[in-house]
Amino acid sequence: MIIIGERINATRKNIAEAIEKKDEEFIKKEVEKQIKYGAEFIDLNAGTGKGNEKEDLKWLIDITQQLGEIPISLDSSDIEAIEYCIQFIKSNEKMINSINGEKEKLEKFLPFIKNNPDCKIVALTMDDNGIPEDVEKRVEIARKLIDTLMENGVKGENIFIDPLVQPVSVNSKNGIIFIQTLKKIKEIFPDVKTTCGLSNISFGLPKRRVLNRYFLAILISAGLDSAILDPVDPGIREALYASEVLTGKDEFCINYIKAYRENKI
Amino acid sequence: MIIIGERINATRKNIAEAIEKKDEEFIKKEVEKQIKYGAEFIDLNAGTGKGNEKEDLKWLIDITQQLGEIPISLDSSDIEAIEYCIQFIKSNEKMINSINGEKEKLEKFLPFIKNNPDCKIVALTMDDNGIPEDVEKRVEIARKLIDTLMENGVKGENIFIDPLVQPVSVNSKNGIIFIQTLKKIKEIFPDVKTTCGLSNISFGLPKRRVLNRYFLAILISAGLDSAILDPVDPGIREALYASEVLTGKDEFCINYIKAYRENKI
Repeated sequence: MIIIGERINATRKNIAEAIEKKDEEFIKKEVEKQIKYGAEFIDLNAGTGKGNEKEDLKWLIDITQQLGEIPISLDSSDIEAIEYCIQFIKSNEKMINSINGEKEKLEKFLPFIKNNPDCKIVALTMDDNGIPEDVEKRVEIARKLIDTLMENGVKGENIFIDPLVQPVSVNSKNGIIFIQTLKKIKEIFPDVKTTCGLSNISFGLPKRRVLNRYFLAILISAGLDSAILDPVDPGIREALYASEVLTGKDEFCINYIKAYRENKI
Repeated sequence: MIIIGERINATRKNIAEAIEKKDEEFIKKEVEKQIKYGAEFIDLNAGTGKGNEKEDLKWLIDITQQLGEIPISLDSSDIEAIEYCIQFIKSNEKMINSINGEKEKLEKFLPFIKNNPDCKIVALTMDDNGIPEDVEKRVEIARKLIDTLMENGVKGENIFIDPLVQPVSVNSKNGIIFIQTLKKIKEIFPDVKTTCGLSNISFGLPKRRVLNRYFLAILISAGLDSAILDPVDPGIREALYASEVLTGKDEFCINYIKAYRENKI
């Protein structure tokens, strides 16, 4: 599992405040914690709606990189902000999050994609008609996105399809629709990676963290390759380490026992 | 999910002591707690190795039934004890746990099965050669057990195949072997039910309850119909309620929200 740490997101109040006040120490601590608990990418989202997204995102990159050449995921739908910011990332591991099947938007991203063939790309299964409720239609959008990205030089291993987690409080079938779409995509496109914004599943319900952690376990068993999540949450860590043990991915239970000894679970 | 409450098991020290001392109140409380938290069957195991299993099992039945006509699962491999005890169960819902593919043992059980066509039967996927490591071989034993039981008048819905959970500490693949066997059995025999002794998965590892609860979530998403488990464990309850929400089995999240309001999760 590739963990993309979700905590530096301007839709969270304390992050928006830290960006506004340019509170370097706060951001640095948030990055540090996530790396300590296994984040392989740090997601950076500076979309406060108030400031200058481009400059704020660059500021977040600079602070993150005070801790080393950290792999960064640029979380913005603003192609200009992404084009400007990507040059400041020092790590060879870069990710952009997110494109989707909306025609105009996708076309805008194509020159960037051609110029950055090794950048990992998160692609959401929605298009100009919105997010389909239907598994087959989401798979169809995934197919179009994969075709377009590959035609433009992106390798399968760098494509991260996000079949879009939606809240079960809105539709009781949203969990199972996601699980089924994920399984289909893994079956049809075994060389392509998958990811998700995990915590959307629990929106509007009590004990959200409980739902998030069990959803993660179920998704790992269904073949999920990566997730945008909060590795600082002990419940999420338990779900991660336990699921790798239970699905045979942690040989001799070494990582689980190590995490236990280091008080990470 | 049909929950079979596992707590009244003589391999647990406090239960063995209660059986020895004939401590009615202790047993009654254990039964009561399990029912409170959703057990639909109470598993009764009196195999202390010391006492008289037949009489001890009857004693457990009598105490359990002081609380009403509780569905009971008789957990013994002693056909005589089962034949003797079944007559004392007042509920129409009866279960015996467990038979398996060992030829001699299975044949001994056949007259009982013919005489009790509505009794639910837990059948383990092992035979005279032990427990196969191989998914296909476990499915093969399941097929033979299902054929034999059906030929002797048992309906599919009363057959509970247990594909045998073994510890991941012994073989890192034991979790995934179980998951794959379960999926195959559900695919080939959709009319037959499945069950398992959940907590075997975590034997020999730290934080056993963490592994048990995530394994339950993964198994529910893989189609498990029933499990022998401890519903009094809050982590197990969380896994149960959350998994039903996440796999679309809890319409409008009603059970989850109700459990939350009643402080059950």
